[in-house]
Amino acid sequence: MTQSVTQNTHLGTVAIIGIGLIGGSLAKALKRSAVVKRIIALDSSPAAGVKAVELGIADSVGRWEDLAQADVIVLATPVDALYEICTRLAQLPLKKEVVMTDVGSTKSSVLDAMERAFGKVPVNFVPGHPIAGREKSGVTAAEADLFTNHKVILTTLEDTDNRALGVVSRMWHAAGALTTYMSIAEHDEILGATSHLPHVLAYLLVDLLDQDLHHDEIFQYAAGGFRDFTRIASSSPVMWRDVCLHNPEVLRDLLSQYRARIVQFEKLLETHDGAAIETLFARAKAARDAHFEKVKNL
Amino acid sequence: MTQSVTQNTHLGTVAIIGIGLIGGSLAKALKRSAVVKRIIALDSSPAAGVKAVELGIADSVGRWEDLAQADVIVLATPVDALYEICTRLAQLPLKKEVVMTDVGSTKSSVLDAMERAFGKVPVNFVPGHPIAGREKSGVTAAEADLFTNHKVILTTLEDTDNRALGVVSRMWHAAGALTTYMSIAEHDEILGATSHLPHVLAYLLVDLLDQDLHHDEIFQYAAGGFRDFTRIASSSPVMWRDVCLHNPEVLRDLLSQYRARIVQFEKLLETHDGAAIETLFARAKAARDAHFEKVKNL
Repeated sequence: MTQSVTQNTHLGTVAIIGIGLIGGSLAKALKRSAVVKRIIALDSSPAAGVKAVELGIADSVGRWEDLAQADVIVLATPVDALYEICTRLAQLPLKKEVVMTDVGSTKSSVLDAMERAFGKVPVNFVPGHPIAGREKSGVTAAEADLFTNHKVILTTLEDTDNRALGVVSRMWHAAGALTTYMSIAEHDEILGATSHLPHVLAYLLVDLLDQDLHHDEIFQYAAGGFRDFTRIASSSPVMWRDVCLHNPEVLRDLLSQYRARIVQFEKLLETHDGAAIETLFARAKAARDAHFEKVKNL
Repeated sequence: MTQSVTQNTHLGTVAIIGIGLIGGSLAKALKRSAVVKRIIALDSSPAAGVKAVELGIADSVGRWEDLAQADVIVLATPVDALYEICTRLAQLPLKKEVVMTDVGSTKSSVLDAMERAFGKVPVNFVPGHPIAGREKSGVTAAEADLFTNHKVILTTLEDTDNRALGVVSRMWHAAGALTTYMSIAEHDEILGATSHLPHVLAYLLVDLLDQDLHHDEIFQYAAGGFRDFTRIASSSPVMWRDVCLHNPEVLRDLLSQYRARIVQFEKLLETHDGAAIETLFARAKAARDAHFEKVKNL
């Protein structure tokens, strides 16, 4: 009886492929939670794995063949490495009961890679997306609290195995996160609005000022508001190109809606409608403040 | 000789009307610099003036009649108080040699107020705009380093008195800032691009998500990037309404250019042009990073 309960609540050996900010933070949070027997770190950079062990984030640096011992495999690499990794996974003698998951911000790329490598998306693969991050990257930036009270979206497929879903949910709860479930379409719509759209808008603003306005020194007159607004335009161009290419319909629709909002606002300026401008600004401020009032470092 | 030099380099008594974040920080920086004999704080809130004295930011709380002793008068109130204050100033027995300046982010409002109150903009009034700020407000948020190495734009008019310009320049240098000079039109174009446009875009994005997307919980899925991008949408709706109403032509032109950029980007998504998307993102990132590489807290 006791043994059975232990088996059902413990995660066993967790292998994390890609031990950067996200993978490293997850490992650190799981280490603290004591639901994990052992954490194996795999990384294309040997130094990253060694550093993870030095920092006490992982128990050992793993090789591909060590994945045969894993009870949970977490894919935490950049999107462009996914196909090669999934192909390797499909060729390895993994445990029959192994549970796989990922941390990617677009879900179609990992599902494509899984489907191409395995023939179909395995029922023991649970697509996951933790809504957390930092500007910093790499295992040295890992924080045990990165996911505390943050959402993790699990986009289960129709035939996703329930036990696999339970294991991944438990893992994220152990890391302090709040899991939530939705379809891939809904995920891509929501993340399109809250993440992909702002990134595109920030890149476009910086490029407009840099390329079109022909003022060498214009950025010198940018204050803190501009710095915050454009911070996401310092994100990885390759990663965000991939995100855009994986969610183009949603993004085009949002960009079109946003343009319509700009046109409406231009009319308010044209008619000098201060009351309507103030109403709009006050409504937006209230919506934002209501959400972030409980979040520190506003 | 010594006395003459002293007279020409010392600012004498500085009166700051509106002792909030900007006025308070200027007072604090001037206190530290020792170029000021005395700082008088005036504020529509008596508590703010008392607090400024308690904090050692000002030497005394002033009344209107105390402005007769001022060598420099700094207007640091919200825009909507300017006309009343300018009218009061025009009725007071000010020193003949007094120098006046302001800290507003749009210049037409203060010039309108000055013109209406004095008949014409006084030659001893130097419009000024420090490019610095914080989300926090009020005298308790004042920081002596708020302006250190920040630009202050002085938008002199054709008949602005040279001595007045020298006094205001010296004051900002003493506060650690870098003064720069440009026409009001150039100021409004540059600030339109680096400040007014981003604020409007942030308000519009939050309002789009809040009003149009009909997803009660959408903000729950917003991560740090969204929080940074929309931080300026938590700014004062009244202040930003006024900014928009004072710079509508520049802003409409910029919004139109920005819409054209969005349309171009939608075409890149439609044609799945990853190379062009990456080029655009990489160029924007490089432009931003090049400017902010020396700025801390990227």
